[in-house]
Amino acid sequence: MKGSIKIVTIGGGSSYTPELIEGFINRYEELPIKEIWLVDIEDGKEKLEIVGRLAQRMWDAAGYKVKVYTTLNRQEALVNADFVTTQFRVGLLDARIIDERIPLLHGMLGQETNGAGGVFKAFRTIPVMKEIIKDMKALCPNAWLINFTNPSGIITEAVIKQFGWEKCIGLCNVPGIAMMNEPNVLGMEPTKLHHQFAGLNHFHWHKVFDNQGNDMTDQLIDHINEKNGGTPANIYQAEFPLELLHTMHLLPCGYHRYYYLEKEMLEHSIEEFRCGGTRAEQMKEVEAELFKIYQNPDLTTKPEQLKKRGGAYYSDTACECISAIYNDKGSHMVVSTKNKGAISCLDSESIVEVSSIITAKGASPIAWGKMRSAEKGWVQIMKAMEECTIEAALSGDYGQALEAFTINPLIQSGREAKQILDELLVAHAKYLPQFDEKIGQLKKDGVASKDAVVVKLIENGY
Amino acid sequence: MKGSIKIVTIGGGSSYTPELIEGFINRYEELPIKEIWLVDIEDGKEKLEIVGRLAQRMWDAAGYKVKVYTTLNRQEALVNADFVTTQFRVGLLDARIIDERIPLLHGMLGQETNGAGGVFKAFRTIPVMKEIIKDMKALCPNAWLINFTNPSGIITEAVIKQFGWEKCIGLCNVPGIAMMNEPNVLGMEPTKLHHQFAGLNHFHWHKVFDNQGNDMTDQLIDHINEKNGGTPANIYQAEFPLELLHTMHLLPCGYHRYYYLEKEMLEHSIEEFRCGGTRAEQMKEVEAELFKIYQNPDLTTKPEQLKKRGGAYYSDTACECISAIYNDKGSHMVVSTKNKGAISCLDSESIVEVSSIITAKGASPIAWGKMRSAEKGWVQIMKAMEECTIEAALSGDYGQALEAFTINPLIQSGREAKQILDELLVAHAKYLPQFDEKIGQLKKDGVASKDAVVVKLIENGY
Amino acid sequence: MKGSIKIVTIGGGSSYTPELIEGFINRYEELPIKEIWLVDIEDGKEKLEIVGRLAQRMWDAAGYKVKVYTTLNRQEALVNADFVTTQFRVGLLDARIIDERIPLLHGMLGQETNGAGGVFKAFRTIPVMKEIIKDMKALCPNAWLINFTNPSGIITEAVIKQFGWEKCIGLCNVPGIAMMNEPNVLGMEPTKLHHQFAGLNHFHWHKVFDNQGNDMTDQLIDHINEKNGGTPANIYQAEFPLELLHTMHLLPCGYHRYYYLEKEMLEHSIEEFRCGGTRAEQMKEVEAELFKIYQNPDLTTKPEQLKKRGGAYYSDTACECISAIYNDKGSHMVVSTKNKGAISCLDSESIVEVSSIITAKGASPIAWGKMRSAEKGWVQIMKAMEECTIEAALSGDYGQALEAFTINPLIQSGREAKQILDELLVAHAKYLPQFDEKIGQLKKDGVASKDAVVVKLIENGY
Amino acid sequence: MKGSIKIVTIGGGSSYTPELIEGFINRYEELPIKEIWLVDIEDGKEKLEIVGRLAQRMWDAAGYKVKVYTTLNRQEALVNADFVTTQFRVGLLDARIIDERIPLLHGMLGQETNGAGGVFKAFRTIPVMKEIIKDMKALCPNAWLINFTNPSGIITEAVIKQFGWEKCIGLCNVPGIAMMNEPNVLGMEPTKLHHQFAGLNHFHWHKVFDNQGNDMTDQLIDHINEKNGGTPANIYQAEFPLELLHTMHLLPCGYHRYYYLEKEMLEHSIEEFRCGGTRAEQMKEVEAELFKIYQNPDLTTKPEQLKKRGGAYYSDTACECISAIYNDKGSHMVVSTKNKGAISCLDSESIVEVSSIITAKGASPIAWGKMRSAEKGWVQIMKAMEECTIEAALSGDYGQALEAFTINPLIQSGREAKQILDELLVAHAKYLPQFDEKIGQLKKDGVASKDAVVVKLIENGY
Repeated sequence: MKGSIKIVTIGGGSSYTPELIEGFINRYEELPIKEIWLVDIEDGKEKLEIVGRLAQRMWDAAGYKVKVYTTLNRQEALVNADFVTTQFRVGLLDARIIDERIPLLHGMLGQETNGAGGVFKAFRTIPVMKEIIKDMKALCPNAWLINFTNPSGIITEAVIKQFGWEKCIGLCNVPGIAMMNEPNVLGMEPTKLHHQFAGLNHFHWHKVFDNQGNDMTDQLIDHINEKNGGTPANIYQAEFPLELLHTMHLLPCGYHRYYYLEKEMLEHSIEEFRCGGTRAEQMKEVEAELFKIYQNPDLTTKPEQLKKRGGAYYSDTACECISAIYNDKGSHMVVSTKNKGAISCLDSESIVEVSSIITAKGASPIAWGKMRSAEKGWVQIMKAMEECTIEAALSGDYGQALEAFTINPLIQSGREAKQILDELLVAHAKYLPQFDEKIGQLKKDGVASKDAVVVKLIENGY
Repeated sequence: MKGSIKIVTIGGGSSYTPELIEGFINRYEELPIKEIWLVDIEDGKEKLEIVGRLAQRMWDAAGYKVKVYTTLNRQEALVNADFVTTQFRVGLLDARIIDERIPLLHGMLGQETNGAGGVFKAFRTIPVMKEIIKDMKALCPNAWLINFTNPSGIITEAVIKQFGWEKCIGLCNVPGIAMMNEPNVLGMEPTKLHHQFAGLNHFHWHKVFDNQGNDMTDQLIDHINEKNGGTPANIYQAEFPLELLHTMHLLPCGYHRYYYLEKEMLEHSIEEFRCGGTRAEQMKEVEAELFKIYQNPDLTTKPEQLKKRGGAYYSDTACECISAIYNDKGSHMVVSTKNKGAISCLDSESIVEVSSIITAKGASPIAWGKMRSAEKGWVQIMKAMEECTIEAALSGDYGQALEAFTINPLIQSGREAKQILDELLVAHAKYLPQFDEKIGQLKKDGVASKDAVVVKLIENGY
Repeated sequence: MKGSIKIVTIGGGSSYTPELIEGFINRYEELPIKEIWLVDIEDGKEKLEIVGRLAQRMWDAAGYKVKVYTTLNRQEALVNADFVTTQFRVGLLDARIIDERIPLLHGMLGQETNGAGGVFKAFRTIPVMKEIIKDMKALCPNAWLINFTNPSGIITEAVIKQFGWEKCIGLCNVPGIAMMNEPNVLGMEPTKLHHQFAGLNHFHWHKVFDNQGNDMTDQLIDHINEKNGGTPANIYQAEFPLELLHTMHLLPCGYHRYYYLEKEMLEHSIEEFRCGGTRAEQMKEVEAELFKIYQNPDLTTKPEQLKKRGGAYYSDTACECISAIYNDKGSHMVVSTKNKGAISCLDSESIVEVSSIITAKGASPIAWGKMRSAEKGWVQIMKAMEECTIEAALSGDYGQALEAFTINPLIQSGREAKQILDELLVAHAKYLPQFDEKIGQLKKDGVASKDAVVVKLIENGY
Repeated sequence: MKGSIKIVTIGGGSSYTPELIEGFINRYEELPIKEIWLVDIEDGKEKLEIVGRLAQRMWDAAGYKVKVYTTLNRQEALVNADFVTTQFRVGLLDARIIDERIPLLHGMLGQETNGAGGVFKAFRTIPVMKEIIKDMKALCPNAWLINFTNPSGIITEAVIKQFGWEKCIGLCNVPGIAMMNEPNVLGMEPTKLHHQFAGLNHFHWHKVFDNQGNDMTDQLIDHINEKNGGTPANIYQAEFPLELLHTMHLLPCGYHRYYYLEKEMLEHSIEEFRCGGTRAEQMKEVEAELFKIYQNPDLTTKPEQLKKRGGAYYSDTACECISAIYNDKGSHMVVSTKNKGAISCLDSESIVEVSSIITAKGASPIAWGKMRSAEKGWVQIMKAMEECTIEAALSGDYGQALEAFTINPLIQSGREAKQILDELLVAHAKYLPQFDEKIGQLKKDGVASKDAVVVKLIENGY
């Protein structure tokens, strides 16, 4: 593939794309791209065109001869691709609004990667990913798939374990943010710190060592509740109990707040909902504003406003990962990849998010070793929840969907959880063909959300 | 030991003792007991005497020459014991009242074997059990320990794994109740059904086969929500979702309601508390009544009223287990014993509750095989919770106690859970010497329960 | 199936069949058989007829109305079978002669279930078994398969894991012989001893306890080198080193001599070969004699001479196993069945030979627990050898066949082992269609055995 | 420790020391050593002085102010050491002569790290290592131990698992030799190849990839039997069967010849013995010559003749490892370290030899993932053999020693193996205090080697 790289970005009409383009421009000298194909669906056509034009202007302004293509025809794009990145969102932000509103109206967590929302995002995404892999097998059998569609770990597991596409790496911006912030916290140069991460996507822990082998983890724990302690901006900063972390002797990720501080996180999320609607609704406004800016024909660089969007560094991480593979860099990155024993209490074939060495042959995970009882138990139930979610997403079996809900630690099991499940199935019917039969029956039984916003979205065929 | 069995019952002053005695009387021909030593502590002296006299009357009426001893001196009793049964309750029912009231006042589950209550019962019991084992090593090194002090699985794990006493079997009445009821549900003779159980104490599943190898599990699932479906009387009979059970293709135990129907169970428990106080308070009344009856010098058999007490068949199960060992019966029983791979997703050394063959050398567990994702994840987090609980009970480390609370699926983690932990530590200070230092600090910080009943119990040195 | 059992015996023309019939006759009251179908191939037609007539005479003399059918049409026989037993030998004793002579001529072990001979018996048998299972899926999908074709553990693993036939139990006479002899050694009643076995077919260890839970293993070790110490008659009784066994604290099976006393066993086997030909050649003579006896129209019972044949109790074990399933007996038998964690250092899905409870739903293995380092290492390499053998038998890949030879502890790896492999492939060409291509190439290269007996057998199309 | 490194080399009088010194001189700019302590025992005093003087001359000639100390007092040397390297040989080359001669005289493999010789080297070394660790705990609790005393993997396992010294890395020159030669074989620059190794010391496999992710393993297999194919010079180059390696799709290490070509290797070793005595005897001559050269007061660099000695690059690897730790290099090295799941079919706590990232906190192994059946079986039995060896070395239990011999794939089990064990125990009595009792009994029984050389060595108190 050397010398004339073809990149395909599925979900190319996303507001994130300019960051991705910027990342490629910054690395052009080491990553000589020839063409970038932005792929999207009919509903996203307008955004795709806007983003496509901006992307081309960015490359032109940078002075590199890279051609940006936009297309609604995924197969046309995939032919002979070298790298495929996936950042699509089935049902767009409207689907996320539904994922958040329905649970919250029942007093449960509405969050797009955890709880009921995360399960449903997987239900909608996995069937589409199956089709993408089918196309890739036919059209670009040697390509690497760099996934950052959420829930990133679950999707990556489906791609590798279920669909058999080994050349796939799942990415997330959370570990990178921690690695960027922690040197500041300690007042040390980034190159003097080593991080070791292990766990699952949005559910990993890490340890930090300095360049003399000293364990800096406890020092960092003491600063974890400070501002900019390394937690992504979109997570409410409830205070971790330090006694717990010192006993664990590990740094949790920001998302662990949902598990270690379940009550505060739930209350805050309900409160936020009451005051200003869901996060998805806020994001929709931010996006509308961004696309206005993107349309400015004089704009030739990534606009500052994109940082507000959340998910910063996602695209940059993707560019770095692609470069590490292309250039056989041997760099340390934290990615979702096949476990291979790195976390010894999980199956060798499971997808985990761990510190890995990235070379031309992909990710080689670094072995973490035995986990303590608590981390072991947590990571095992979370992996079981992921497996149940994938099974249900593939089979469309209602009992399995209920099982995924029941085992999910952020869903309080029982009749109301079942009601949420039913309402979400009906609300997302359009994107859940695998559950057709059950949804038909639920509709007959009159199951429907009573939330006005949701009702309207459905009426508009969202 | 043949021919002149010496039984020692620790917690001998319990209201359950008459059932135990009845069990032994019924089996005298196969289990020739010579003496029974009922051991209790100073606070339980009066009850001990009442029960001891009743027990002696029961034996005499049955026409067997068996001598019942009562003593507050455990060591005196243990000398050359053949079987030791443990049914003591550290802090008596008053401790249980506290375990139930404090969480419930904070809107969390108050239950003696699950949630915060179960964790604290383990915290109080494990140090005492450590002393008992120390005595047994010195005074009756060949004795079998039959434990039915709750949380039975956790206590059995501490005895075998931590204290190194291999000749220990943990018992529970839950599996036996299911095995008694299910033939009725199917209209079949008990001998025509085979049960296979696997899981942990109060957290196991089972399958049922008839004598032609047909799997009867699904038929029984369809009846599970009926009255007398095999759930112990003390558990609220919220309705299991049948779709879930049919997907699992397993029968849950009654306690699974707390995990599969978390919301209903919590709501019911709060409601019950509002209306009539805690279950422990009800039990205290039942007990008072029972002891009045026991004092009747004409009473020479187990009174009918004991059945109300809950925990029926516990003692009978213990007698049967002792007889199976003594007589090398090779009978099938469901007991807490060393896993040995029977549940392959748990450590070989962990204590599990599984179908076993009971012979003179103890329990041989029957291998269950691979669990499905959900059962695997559940059983792994529950075992991790048990391990965290035992570690904290032994070390008195506050961070570990917090970890046990955080990972417990029935405790909603966060600041309020920490508050419950702190209040329980202070309330139970008398029985938690291992946490002395932390409790001292908590008291200095003014942590105390605001519940009038709890305050009064503490004032009275409960 | 109650009341009118149909048994099908593949390899029905075997000289063992009268023992099988006797076993069924003895159990007729509990196992009401209606018809027995003896199936064999064209080459075995004459023997099949002789055995069939004897079998019918035996039933008639016993006064039971059971009909014996003989047929060369396996499919005709399998229709609606309740139990299928497999005791066939691909290539008959002539194939065994080759398995024994070729390795022995190169100074390596010639033995039908261990070393090169065992690997080749599996290579020949697995493809035939695949066809049998295909037929069973179509014609008797609810039948139980009771396999005692050797190497019994490997064949059972292929049937269950590779061909997906779960209702299969593998049998061997070795554990039964130990269980019969050991009470005599100790001067105790058989019912007073409990045995627990674990390992693989022809590679298992066991412990023995009395009915008071005392471990009798060490006492039995002290007698193991005595005559009738529980080793099958066909194994040379080289003396086990007692220090080793006492350190293991386990009783080995007779076949362990090949592994613990490799040198003596090899030397004896070469010596025996020099003096009197191979064991297979001796057996052939015994068989010829037996069939003469079987032809006597006055013979209506199993003749005494059959005991000489070796493999005694094989068929009786099969009858007992069938009765245990049919009558849901819950009896303890040592069988090859799915591990399910019973031996925790092997995969849950592997086939192992372990103490099991036999009921209408098949075999439930009893968990053995953690093995010591040495037993663990041994059983793991033996299972790996079995897996390599099965893989090669299915794929016909020469490299895999070489791998099976290389890892087999009884084959000294190197150029000569490869020569043995090549000669055996060519000699057994007729029964190894999966290796066709490689064999063609070997023949072109002039690979052939120089042993006159082997050459003659091949010339006669053996 | 920055800036003034103290190195302690136990077995400092070894002929290898000049290579070690050269390695440190070459790295002085990155590894600023202040002092090097060479420690040896009374018997090695003369050599120690010779080597110590040469080492000092080497440093002086290089123009660095580094002081070399020689001492027989290990404790004096260890005070505040930063790095301790162990390269001692208990009983010197005379012990190795015995390890080689006794098995060879019985027709079994005489080799210092495999077979009987390796087991006895471990028996002699482990008790000494125990004392060294005891001293290190008291005198230099923060030091790193870099072990290259053979059998390196077994010794490292004893140090880390049994003696609890976590800061230990075991080294071997075999992987490094392969990594140096393979680029030449392929005609590629070394930096363009990635190696991944997994297995145990002297029993590992590897795969090779180029910088575009292409798997080069099969190309390298085709060259493996060529001269300089990457096998250490001291191993006879019997030809690997290529079909086997292509099926494995892995490159074996040179020592695998003993396992994959057992017969050739044994025959060659017996032949070599007949013609020219053992390898140890040859080495003894080489050493005598080397020490003559070392005494030359004009010699100020490592003499060329040292390369003949075998074991080249050992010391250089040690220097590189020390520098990687000191400078937190993050470099890829193949070392013996705690598994942590890297080889998922072995215990997480076992010591394995795997590709690792070396930083200031030591070695982080890279996860290898699931092994194929054959590699799994092999590595599991070899680890079991190592465990048995360590257990016997610590306990002095004869049954365990016999167990280690029996399970060792390079020892043909049986009476003669037992005889070899007995003769070796008696011959090495001086260095095997743990076996005192058994040895006394063996001597009483008249067990003694009949080999004249061995007899003479023992007479001289070797």
